[in-house]
Amino acid sequence: MLIELGQRAKAAARVMATASTETKNAALHNIADALIANTEQLLSSNQLDMEEGRKNGMSKALLDRLQLDADRIKGIADSMKMVAQLPDPVGRTLDDFTCSNGLHIIKVSVPIGVIGIIFEARPNVTADSAALCLKSGNVVILRGGSDAIHSNTAICNVMRAALEQSHLPADCVQLVEDTSRESATELMRMNRYVDVIIPRGGAGLIHAVIENATVPVIETGAGTCQIYVDKAANIDMAVRIIDNAKTSRPSVCNAAECMLIHRDIAERALPQIAKALEAKKVEIRGDAEVMRLLANAKPAQESDWGKEYNDYIIAARIVNSIEEAIDYIMTYGTGHSECIVTDDEEAAALFLNTVDAAAVYHNASTRFTDGGEFGMGAEIGISTQKLHARGPLGLRELTSMKYKIYGKGQVR
Amino acid sequence: MLIELGQRAKAAARVMATASTETKNAALHNIADALIANTEQLLSSNQLDMEEGRKNGMSKALLDRLQLDADRIKGIADSMKMVAQLPDPVGRTLDDFTCSNGLHIIKVSVPIGVIGIIFEARPNVTADSAALCLKSGNVVILRGGSDAIHSNTAICNVMRAALEQSHLPADCVQLVEDTSRESATELMRMNRYVDVIIPRGGAGLIHAVIENATVPVIETGAGTCQIYVDKAANIDMAVRIIDNAKTSRPSVCNAAECMLIHRDIAERALPQIAKALEAKKVEIRGDAEVMRLLANAKPAQESDWGKEYNDYIIAARIVNSIEEAIDYIMTYGTGHSECIVTDDEEAAALFLNTVDAAAVYHNASTRFTDGGEFGMGAEIGISTQKLHARGPLGLRELTSMKYKIYGKGQVR
Repeated sequence: MLIELGQRAKAAARVMATASTETKNAALHNIADALIANTEQLLSSNQLDMEEGRKNGMSKALLDRLQLDADRIKGIADSMKMVAQLPDPVGRTLDDFTCSNGLHIIKVSVPIGVIGIIFEARPNVTADSAALCLKSGNVVILRGGSDAIHSNTAICNVMRAALEQSHLPADCVQLVEDTSRESATELMRMNRYVDVIIPRGGAGLIHAVIENATVPVIETGAGTCQIYVDKAANIDMAVRIIDNAKTSRPSVCNAAECMLIHRDIAERALPQIAKALEAKKVEIRGDAEVMRLLANAKPAQESDWGKEYNDYIIAARIVNSIEEAIDYIMTYGTGHSECIVTDDEEAAALFLNTVDAAAVYHNASTRFTDGGEFGMGAEIGISTQKLHARGPLGLRELTSMKYKIYGKGQVR
Repeated sequence: MLIELGQRAKAAARVMATASTETKNAALHNIADALIANTEQLLSSNQLDMEEGRKNGMSKALLDRLQLDADRIKGIADSMKMVAQLPDPVGRTLDDFTCSNGLHIIKVSVPIGVIGIIFEARPNVTADSAALCLKSGNVVILRGGSDAIHSNTAICNVMRAALEQSHLPADCVQLVEDTSRESATELMRMNRYVDVIIPRGGAGLIHAVIENATVPVIETGAGTCQIYVDKAANIDMAVRIIDNAKTSRPSVCNAAECMLIHRDIAERALPQIAKALEAKKVEIRGDAEVMRLLANAKPAQESDWGKEYNDYIIAARIVNSIEEAIDYIMTYGTGHSECIVTDDEEAAALFLNTVDAAAVYHNASTRFTDGGEFGMGAEIGISTQKLHARGPLGLRELTSMKYKIYGKGQVR
């Protein structure tokens, strides 16, 4: 039963709603110091998860994500102190006006309240999410996966003790210890106590949250970014952008998954692009016309269009026009990041105005869709929905607002 | 099967995304003129609904909401022309900066896309919602109740014809003709084609949408507004505000449903408040202490706390402190509009900072929580959730945003 966690979270949220910037920053510093001071204990808890993981045949990649070491704990602590340095997103005046009847209305940013984070096997998410939620005046209920339960519990306990020493409620950070599917479902349906759910993880997790949540959700994650190489593209630039967008970090959501090449430039551009990609061992899955131009390409199946590979694979397709490229993106894209490479300003304007995505690029890699790159300092994920926030979710995106209205007895 | 509606809506949304302000305004004027020109036809369709309603024993109040007449149609047309005069919320620059790597990032407001509106028996909602959605560059799928199906179909057909004459797709406005529960459920789960669902109606409708929707929802409607009369209140002002907040229009969501009176002022204030309310035939349901002070009060049941009467009834309760008042509001309020009446600035600041609601008032009636009063010109509802938008939803609240990023070949 998570109701008690919910009640404690609501009570803590009331304290956090009026906590000063200094108090919140001091708490973040105290937590960071406590994490480092407790390194040994955190590593021995993490060791338990690692042993379980090895026993259960967890993949090497997942084991690597799960593992903590002194450097990683220092990294977590450093980014917590970095969050402390960012501007407080709470209490900003968003609007300020006086009505003809004399009512003075001020719209101010306030914390959202209680944020539920449902995530998978990366224990750093525990501390990173907590830092962003605390700085934005929110209280967080964390529901991590069973694979990292010992690590998460240890990190959470250190954070709770440090919060109390900072004169903030320990319940600003709570961990759901029950890692059953039922506990996740219960959390995402506690509308009375939870104001928003943010899933952080793979497509399966995100789908389960959207399917089952009654609490409002900020959808993050899935990205099938496209690069469209226009007939007026600079081919060298196209090669560089596609190479970077596909291979600099294939596992992330802002990596490219498909390239669309205008027919008029395909014969010249595609072999050069393919050469750069093949040098990095990227498999190209093309339509019939791509196959005709590239000896080493493999034939794409219908399921390749719109697929998020997160791997050294890219789909490729010849299009007859910019409109056909836009059509493809509107059909198969996830509204994350889309790019046109062209020297034609009009084509660029058409693409950027028409393509419906969080980030639309002219002549730059989609890999820039990132809170750090956008100057937010940190992010809790990348929203691919259109309500509330789109693109990287920084501190401001973790706030809501209220109207404060000052009268002298006005009635209507 | 609503999928075809969804596909047509998405196609229309692409046209609307780049429609000019002039085109949208011209369409609104053409629709308004067409509604007036077709008054007779609209009234005869409405007559069919009215006859059905009478046959089915619909209440007088509901029949009144359902009824159209020439004046009401003129009112709908006038407010459509008023929406045309409001500033275009699309294309506003929300942020504009250049990164150290030279990337130029512009955050602009864009239409949300496809908005689903699920509503009950008021045919004016059909036209009003469409006007706000069109002005904000959105496409709307309307799913009204069976009681108003003839009226809604007629209004919708007139709007669609006028859209085509305005060189916009008729599919910018579509009506779900199937009024079964299944069609509403299907609409709220069409994540591929619908970007947001806004329910407009009673608590039952809103609950069903929250329970079943997988599409993001903007929750509107339910309001149990409280008025707290502080020990430092001006009693005359408290009488005036409570009278107004309860009786000026009891059926709306910004009407007061409960008054909380500080113990130190109760003996003087409560009889005066009660006198004003009883003159308007308001029933007061009080706790034991209120009962002791007011001869005519009825005893409140547990179910009276937090109840939205929408009627000439108000709950009343004595509190020992402002903290107890805030506690009550945090426990029973719906986060809509809450008011403190006091001459003590510190108490007012505590209340406005601590109470978590869309609108928090010092010395003014809660009835002002309204898009028109807030200078928005028009509203599609009042949001009581904390994501995306809180309080009155005007045109700006019907937009999303995107990042347009201009590079010179930057890679990461």
